[in-house]
Amino acid sequence: MPRNSEDARHRMIIAALELFTQNGFDQTTAAQIAARAGVTERTFFRHFPDKREVLFVGQEILSAALTESIRQAPADLPQIAVLRRAFADVTPLLEDNRRFSEPRQHIIAANPALIEREVAKHAALAGVVAGALQKRGIAPARAAFAAQAGLAVLGHALDLWFANAARPLDQCLAEAFEELDLFVTPVGRS
Amino acid sequence: MPRNSEDARHRMIIAALELFTQNGFDQTTAAQIAARAGVTERTFFRHFPDKREVLFVGQEILSAALTESIRQAPADLPQIAVLRRAFADVTPLLEDNRRFSEPRQHIIAANPALIEREVAKHAALAGVVAGALQKRGIAPARAAFAAQAGLAVLGHALDLWFANAARPLDQCLAEAFEELDLFVTPVGRS
Repeated sequence: MPRNSEDARHRMIIAALELFTQNGFDQTTAAQIAARAGVTERTFFRHFPDKREVLFVGQEILSAALTESIRQAPADLPQIAVLRRAFADVTPLLEDNRRFSEPRQHIIAANPALIEREVAKHAALAGVVAGALQKRGIAPARAAFAAQAGLAVLGHALDLWFANAARPLDQCLAEAFEELDLFVTPVGRS
Repeated sequence: MPRNSEDARHRMIIAALELFTQNGFDQTTAAQIAARAGVTERTFFRHFPDKREVLFVGQEILSAALTESIRQAPADLPQIAVLRRAFADVTPLLEDNRRFSEPRQHIIAANPALIEREVAKHAALAGVVAGALQKRGIAPARAAFAAQAGLAVLGHALDLWFANAARPLDQCLAEAFEELDLFVTPVGRS
């Protein structure tokens, strides 16, 4: 995407998050977002199918980046290492979008229809990751399980990251993988 | 619930699954389900808020049973053992409902709105399980992660079980927990 178009896209995302936060999601129109971002409505709809998708465009990009990393991982790497590598690969992307994440979370949490959309998108992401693992020759049920377990780790890392702005994401990822180890093999207990 | 009421409920579930399978979910009405089950529409709506919920009533029962098992687990049990015990506790319930599970899956898979509902119900189940773990004194983020990892194992066990009618569910659960071990500590690889 050309630089100007990328800038306009960012302005629209910021404008949308601001308006959703100030006035509520339902009360905000695509026209208002476009006006605040200094673009035409037509430009808005060239970038997003509707105002709701402004909130979910990041997930599409994340999904594509994870898939590409999984595709490129060395053939003999175990699944967990493939996923760990993929999460490390998308860390800069997630860091770049950090400033959008917090307002986005608040907007979604305030609207049941958006929560449903978020849940559906998350399930779709698990399906995409499972599909990418399957292409590496892993059986469907096993790939689906690995995708879910892996995304639970990523989700936990993001929870830790959102809870503490000062901690780098890669540290949160390491801690989330340790949490998985501890879940599977509880230390000092039967 | 009294025995007669339980019988009627089962008849309605079976009638609904048969009609959804034969005629499609959208083409089936609550009145048709009631008629086939030999009950009045009024009785149908005493048991289910709408025809869709016939497909999801089992998840409510599962959710309540898991919560109760987690609540009763010994205080010093590690999270994974609490969940393993809870899954074992609901195994008879899942076995009793096995004959509903396969037609149900096909009906849901054929209808995007039902898939969305299924995904939302699954997310709600993860929230309920996380809440039950939190009541045991586990921090929210850690409980949410354990719930997701645990339900991924349960989901994998059910996948294995649905794929092979001859295998008992407890065997599939054991295999799914082994799969988690193998995911976390891949054998014979770096």
